[in-house]
Amino acid sequence: MPKPERIAIVGAGLIGRAWATVFARAGLDVTITDIDAASLAASRERIRATLEDLRDAGLVGDPAAVLSRIRCAGDLGEAVETASYVQECGPEDAELKSRLFAELEARTGPDTILASSTSGIVASKFNGQMQDRSRAIVAHPVNPPSLIPLVEVAPSPDTAAGIVDRTMALMEQVGQSPILVRREVEGFVLNRLQGALLNEALRLLRDGVASAADIDRTMRDGLGRRWAFMGPFETIDLNAPNGAGDYARRYGPIYRRLDEARDAQPWTAEVIDRLVDQLRSADPIDAHEARCDRRDRRLMALTAHLQHASDQD
Amino acid sequence: MPKPERIAIVGAGLIGRAWATVFARAGLDVTITDIDAASLAASRERIRATLEDLRDAGLVGDPAAVLSRIRCAGDLGEAVETASYVQECGPEDAELKSRLFAELEARTGPDTILASSTSGIVASKFNGQMQDRSRAIVAHPVNPPSLIPLVEVAPSPDTAAGIVDRTMALMEQVGQSPILVRREVEGFVLNRLQGALLNEALRLLRDGVASAADIDRTMRDGLGRRWAFMGPFETIDLNAPNGAGDYARRYGPIYRRLDEARDAQPWTAEVIDRLVDQLRSADPIDAHEARCDRRDRRLMALTAHLQHASDQD
Repeated sequence: MPKPERIAIVGAGLIGRAWATVFARAGLDVTITDIDAASLAASRERIRATLEDLRDAGLVGDPAAVLSRIRCAGDLGEAVETASYVQECGPEDAELKSRLFAELEARTGPDTILASSTSGIVASKFNGQMQDRSRAIVAHPVNPPSLIPLVEVAPSPDTAAGIVDRTMALMEQVGQSPILVRREVEGFVLNRLQGALLNEALRLLRDGVASAADIDRTMRDGLGRRWAFMGPFETIDLNAPNGAGDYARRYGPIYRRLDEARDAQPWTAEVIDRLVDQLRSADPIDAHEARCDRRDRRLMALTAHLQHASDQD
Repeated sequence: MPKPERIAIVGAGLIGRAWATVFARAGLDVTITDIDAASLAASRERIRATLEDLRDAGLVGDPAAVLSRIRCAGDLGEAVETASYVQECGPEDAELKSRLFAELEARTGPDTILASSTSGIVASKFNGQMQDRSRAIVAHPVNPPSLIPLVEVAPSPDTAAGIVDRTMALMEQVGQSPILVRREVEGFVLNRLQGALLNEALRLLRDGVASAADIDRTMRDGLGRRWAFMGPFETIDLNAPNGAGDYARRYGPIYRRLDEARDAQPWTAEVIDRLVDQLRSADPIDAHEARCDRRDRRLMALTAHLQHASDQD
């Protein structure tokens, strides 16, 4: 049994705090740091509030015990010097991350994994100032990782295989669901899938085929019912008597035609204005925070349901 | 209060039986017919089995009471003559549907709605042999409609507004979730959204970015967690502090680039072979039926969860 990883989190914003929750609830010791002292000082109380919500949903046992494994450090070097795994949660700025990763390299031991939470910057774009690029990797969570388990583990061509394996194993160990992104592509996997769907949704809105509310309903009361517990390939594999090959023979020609018929990209000011008008007429912007809270409660309840249903399978 | 609709279902296959379940559990009288006498004769027992599964999941009260509202008729004319709403569930063949809809028109009263379950044939393609095209419409369910509430209501340009309104109201009344498809487009809304996502998923597989299992995991443990209870527009509306317009300013440029960079359609024999190889190495085809049963149990449990969570909101 290898020694447990010792976690340092750089950045005490929304993502950094959620990561702290993930690692600490799995029993690991976490040190969190931030250049903004006020943000760092507030982070423990914010994490405590999240842990209490998770406890109320049956997803965490004792918030105080989890919180006791999280400490704050005002100094970056102090936070990372004994860490075996650093989760960077800074701003989405390649230049800033490049400097930060060079500093992290200098302040950590030779076996410490240096992982970025970035959703948009591949590791090759921020490892350039490092002496040894083999320790830099992306571990991109979905917001918030304390409720949505997927993590996209995306090495650069220079990342060592052992670093990839340890990152994947750590994510499994703490109850996340890692995938391996084998090539550095914009948007990794999740945002490419989301983007393809959003692009089509905006075309349908642009062309007057359906309202924004009806497009949302199509996902919520239709496609999303299966995708909550099985992926798109598994779904089509079960939607034809002889599996996915059979499905491709039956329905592939339609999807091929639709793909070839795609026209100009739909992210125009006019289309976005139409979307925002429809959304705001249903929900004014001052309801935003309450709607986010409602989403998080629904996510917690869904997480508890999915854990229970999966256990019974 | 208008008189309750009297339902006739033409076709006792999987979809026809599920529709019978939907209408009868909502308290409506249903007559089901099929040109295949053996299929028709077996349908009540198959519906009973489905109702017992639904009861076990807490989704139906008394299966016998529901079943008592469903009768079988061997003759098409007898089945539809007193109906106010006919749900056609025949093969996906435009010529066959055209003849059938002309016959349905002749054998029903002037106010009877004639709705097709077709996923692929717009109403303009099967209403051509009717004297009066105003009563023909598509009401496309997701399989099985007894578990997935979305229904795509898709009129032709000739469908009367009153027929559209009554169809939408009937679907709401029986607990389904109807959307209005305002223009006749291939794939309606649901399959266009699914197709856009599948096309990107196959590109990611083709290009070696991720395995089929990891792409499935990205949906199941990532995107699908929100899409189970909120649509794609609602999701992005909550993923930026000032809503969807703010989101579009931040992330629109990425999705626009990805959309413009799309290359050749990915439904090639080589890509499908790769997909099928990966799926079959995880789950041999002889596990197909058991996996479908497991999916249906998970869908029933998820339906019960979503009903409960929505009630508590």
